[in-house]
Amino acid sequence: MYIPPPLSVRRNKLSIENFSVESLAQRFGTPIYVYSENRIRENFQRLKNAFQKYYPNFEILYAVKANNNPAIAKILADEGSGMDVCNPAEIWLSRHLGMPKSKTLYTGNYCTDEELAYGAKYCDRINLDDIALLPRLLKFGKPKVLSFRINPKIGKGSVKTNVFAGPEAKFGIPIEKAMQAYAAAKKAGIKRFGMHMMTGSCVLEPDYFEKITGILLDEAGRIARRLKIKFEFIDIGGGFGIPYRPEEKPLDIEKTAQLVTKIFREKCHQFKLGNVTLMVEPGRYFVGDAGVLIGTVHMIKESYQRFAGVDVTINHLVRPKMYGAYHHIVVANKFRKPAKYPINICGSICDSGDILAKVRPLPKLARGDLLAICNAGAYGFSMSSQYNSRPRAREVLINDSRATIIREAEKIEDLFLRCKPTL
Amino acid sequence: MYIPPPLSVRRNKLSIENFSVESLAQRFGTPIYVYSENRIRENFQRLKNAFQKYYPNFEILYAVKANNNPAIAKILADEGSGMDVCNPAEIWLSRHLGMPKSKTLYTGNYCTDEELAYGAKYCDRINLDDIALLPRLLKFGKPKVLSFRINPKIGKGSVKTNVFAGPEAKFGIPIEKAMQAYAAAKKAGIKRFGMHMMTGSCVLEPDYFEKITGILLDEAGRIARRLKIKFEFIDIGGGFGIPYRPEEKPLDIEKTAQLVTKIFREKCHQFKLGNVTLMVEPGRYFVGDAGVLIGTVHMIKESYQRFAGVDVTINHLVRPKMYGAYHHIVVANKFRKPAKYPINICGSICDSGDILAKVRPLPKLARGDLLAICNAGAYGFSMSSQYNSRPRAREVLINDSRATIIREAEKIEDLFLRCKPTL
Repeated sequence: MYIPPPLSVRRNKLSIENFSVESLAQRFGTPIYVYSENRIRENFQRLKNAFQKYYPNFEILYAVKANNNPAIAKILADEGSGMDVCNPAEIWLSRHLGMPKSKTLYTGNYCTDEELAYGAKYCDRINLDDIALLPRLLKFGKPKVLSFRINPKIGKGSVKTNVFAGPEAKFGIPIEKAMQAYAAAKKAGIKRFGMHMMTGSCVLEPDYFEKITGILLDEAGRIARRLKIKFEFIDIGGGFGIPYRPEEKPLDIEKTAQLVTKIFREKCHQFKLGNVTLMVEPGRYFVGDAGVLIGTVHMIKESYQRFAGVDVTINHLVRPKMYGAYHHIVVANKFRKPAKYPINICGSICDSGDILAKVRPLPKLARGDLLAICNAGAYGFSMSSQYNSRPRAREVLINDSRATIIREAEKIEDLFLRCKPTL
Repeated sequence: MYIPPPLSVRRNKLSIENFSVESLAQRFGTPIYVYSENRIRENFQRLKNAFQKYYPNFEILYAVKANNNPAIAKILADEGSGMDVCNPAEIWLSRHLGMPKSKTLYTGNYCTDEELAYGAKYCDRINLDDIALLPRLLKFGKPKVLSFRINPKIGKGSVKTNVFAGPEAKFGIPIEKAMQAYAAAKKAGIKRFGMHMMTGSCVLEPDYFEKITGILLDEAGRIARRLKIKFEFIDIGGGFGIPYRPEEKPLDIEKTAQLVTKIFREKCHQFKLGNVTLMVEPGRYFVGDAGVLIGTVHMIKESYQRFAGVDVTINHLVRPKMYGAYHHIVVANKFRKPAKYPINICGSICDSGDILAKVRPLPKLARGDLLAICNAGAYGFSMSSQYNSRPRAREVLINDSRATIIREAEKIEDLFLRCKPTL
């Protein structure tokens, strides 16, 4: 019986912290996204402690794109996280959360001038995706700290389209041109520097992080030496994975931290980089396994195959359709029953790709059963749409014995909010 | 020089009706969805005339899921179309458009009881996706006309996941069980019947429609004879394709209508079905090639590959990422220049799949160029999301010399509209 976090069995019921899944469904209706605040904090602390133990000068930025609910981002801000922001709306959110300008890093790509101006105004640290952006940024003033996003020519992703670096990626400056970028920035009068990369997505192998850190530090070392600049931070990006399938092992974060900080320290020493800040920007690692999407089975259909229709659709969680992603499903009211009846789990929209799980072995399902769709905290709600005129789901945050609605379910009217003439 | 509709060259400029693409971008900003009202009407008239000529008792329902902007749906309603509605929000929209209850067909799948009740209240004609829905529907009263969605065990789609019938599809009642479904309905006291299927997506071959019509009519014939029921309508669904690629030929709608109505008439005669209404429910065919998504190039990047960054992202148009779909792109200000410089067209969100076109040969691009992304009228805005905290695009409707905003661009605040506590 595989029950991934934040689910657990309490008082013989499948629960999230002190609430049974059944009580949550009853109180808040379905579909609902439910997040465990404690799990988010645990995830943050685990990563922070692992790295800080070996390398105290360590900074974390939350990649808010994983889940931009303000209440979720606020938990991470409370924990001390800064914010990785990639456009004006994310910067706007960081300001609303009271995040100081010094704690964000603005990493746009293919920005408009308006976006660059907004970033320059509200972020002390700007991370440029291309040399061509430098003169455009300088029109809006010099940033306090400038870094470039480097493409180290390798990348890794759990799905084929999620590879953020390498020879095909749209991101970053080819590592061979990094020197040229920093030379141009120095010539333009920039005094404070950082360096950045973001290469992977949902990686579960510690030595991958060691390898890319080594590559980036070698380049930082060459640049520091040749251009006589001092790096204030080196940001190795995110990509810290979570297991989606029962057979996957969690990322060994202790080992990852050990390997990364070891090579980081060695290279800093070798190139005399000084006590530079090691920076990371996880998103999924903090919130991915803290979120569960709960749906109700409304129909069992015996067609050429068997289908269970749920009120969760691929609008709410597009990853199965978009990436063929696996999300583990636990039947809340039958979690002890053997999972030996294969069935397709589908939503109720008129789209043939509205399949959340294909021929998944589960306990024998019936109308009214409650499904807990796991690992829905990252790239779940944030990627959701209103396709097929479907309002988006309610979000609920659990903290021990407190359950708070942090986003109301949309109403039909919301679908046509900006339409003209108004309905 | 391939210039798909609704684009044309007027006064030496790439235009949509009387507006140059450049003037639209200047007046409304980018990104914008622009729709040609005349093109929508032409598409509707072409299909209607083709079928009605051969078979006057012909009814069209607009599949509003393709584009649910009320102003777009209203054009089709004005043309005399009914509406294919698949959930309460679409029914709600049909009511707001003043659509009579008799002109919609409600086709839910895996519905909740609330959805069934809503459908029963506001639609005269209910189309059930499964026999199991019948007793649940009857709790809310008998529909005026009842039909069942039949899965004829074959389907066809332009992309692998868009196959709406066949042995793997979640939709419909297996054709072998159709008799049983109608027998149950008759027994329950239903007096007026229809029959429905929806099998394909973006099909360009006329004989496909002939083939499926034959299969459905054979079944309707058997059922009518055995159960002594009279069908008021037989709905062969949608799936009428549009060409996305320059090398694709448009669906020959004349030939399609000829083939479909011929076999329809023959089978009606053979089985003595009487003068039953032939019904279709196209979406893409009406609005797909009437919409263009206009974006501005904000950056050219020379990385390991060449990239042009546009302010259109896969948030605005997800089909390239989700389906690997091809959308033809015309450079509005360089449309006569030879398309011989291959480049990746990408958006500005932090997602490696944010690629609208891969290594596409285009005229040599520069900052400020305007791209017209074609065939964006169907499953464009309707599938768009706010991923990466990106507000959605403005929509503009063109009618000859009139350009009207039919949906305002979203503001940053809209992203957090239902969040609690409010920001």
